[in-house]
Amino acid sequence: MSIKSEVLAANAEYAEGFGELGALGLPPARGFAILTCMDARLDPAKYAGLSEGDAHVIRNAGGRATDDAIRSLVISYKLLGTREWFVIHHSNCGMEYFTDAEMRSLLAQSLDTAALGPEGFYDTGTGPGSTEADYINWHTISDNAQSVVEDVARIRRHPLVPARIPIYGLIYDVTTGRLIEIDDASKAGAAS
Amino acid sequence: MSIKSEVLAANAEYAEGFGELGALGLPPARGFAILTCMDARLDPAKYAGLSEGDAHVIRNAGGRATDDAIRSLVISYKLLGTREWFVIHHSNCGMEYFTDAEMRSLLAQSLDTAALGPEGFYDTGTGPGSTEADYINWHTISDNAQSVVEDVARIRRHPLVPARIPIYGLIYDVTTGRLIEIDDASKAGAAS
Repeated sequence: MSIKSEVLAANAEYAEGFGELGALGLPPARGFAILTCMDARLDPAKYAGLSEGDAHVIRNAGGRATDDAIRSLVISYKLLGTREWFVIHHSNCGMEYFTDAEMRSLLAQSLDTAALGPEGFYDTGTGPGSTEADYINWHTISDNAQSVVEDVARIRRHPLVPARIPIYGLIYDVTTGRLIEIDDASKAGAAS
Repeated sequence: MSIKSEVLAANAEYAEGFGELGALGLPPARGFAILTCMDARLDPAKYAGLSEGDAHVIRNAGGRATDDAIRSLVISYKLLGTREWFVIHHSNCGMEYFTDAEMRSLLAQSLDTAALGPEGFYDTGTGPGSTEADYINWHTISDNAQSVVEDVARIRRHPLVPARIPIYGLIYDVTTGRLIEIDDASKAGAAS
């Protein structure tokens, strides 16, 4: 079965038991938002105990506080009333295993998928590649606790983010499923 | 109980039964990625049948093909080997209920949460607001099927996206839980 057929079959089964979920309103019932990584091992609904309708979930590579994540967070509070936010990065994040320079060099070589060796990603593809990657900030991470602190701080000092919104910084441990609070996250935000 | 305590309590319960999930590898086991909206009613793991480790999930306001979503998709295939992508917008999306001009005006008035009336969002907050919103493209949606087609097309024509990756465009119906394929999505992409 193709991936698309598998997804549609799983969806038909989900829709079968949908029942009263169809009556949920647009604003998040529990009034909060989570910004986290796209990593396949992370299921924010499961790791944070969310039911359908509870909370906004924003995800990108790294769970970084990019302009687009902040666009989403501002819509989340201004139009849909969220009052608290979580920034959740995680251990063993793919974003720790390359630099902007490496990503640019890999993509300049080919658009094929790179392989991961003991010394990082290397390209085995055949070209053409593209220098378009030179114009992109890949938002890589060198230290997870640090990236959480920085991202909470960036959101905190954004001119469209009200000071009243608490922003919690956490790390998700992919080996245990546990969320670990990063103590300095809010403080770093408040201080900046 | 505070929201943070609720999230941490739910997480402790999840981690309790974590078991072999701790051994999952970094690359998505089923080799695909989903770009969808942050809307609280959407649970992509449930509506598409994903287990932990299966697929990348990227989410922002609207599920739009922003530069940041494309950054994430390129990392997804180039470093972590996804081979197929889904772009999934949904019915009754908040992004249909305002325009860039309205969002700018609301945020210029105050940073408080707006109210939704029969004629759209209106501000009841007290200032100060911020003109920073003038510098942001809010990526609003006027027609859902159209936004899916446009976003698939934008990803398709990006210089870092290989032609071999199928990109499926769908709409999630929040009243039934069903995914509806948008026929023209791939075609529009291929044609552009």
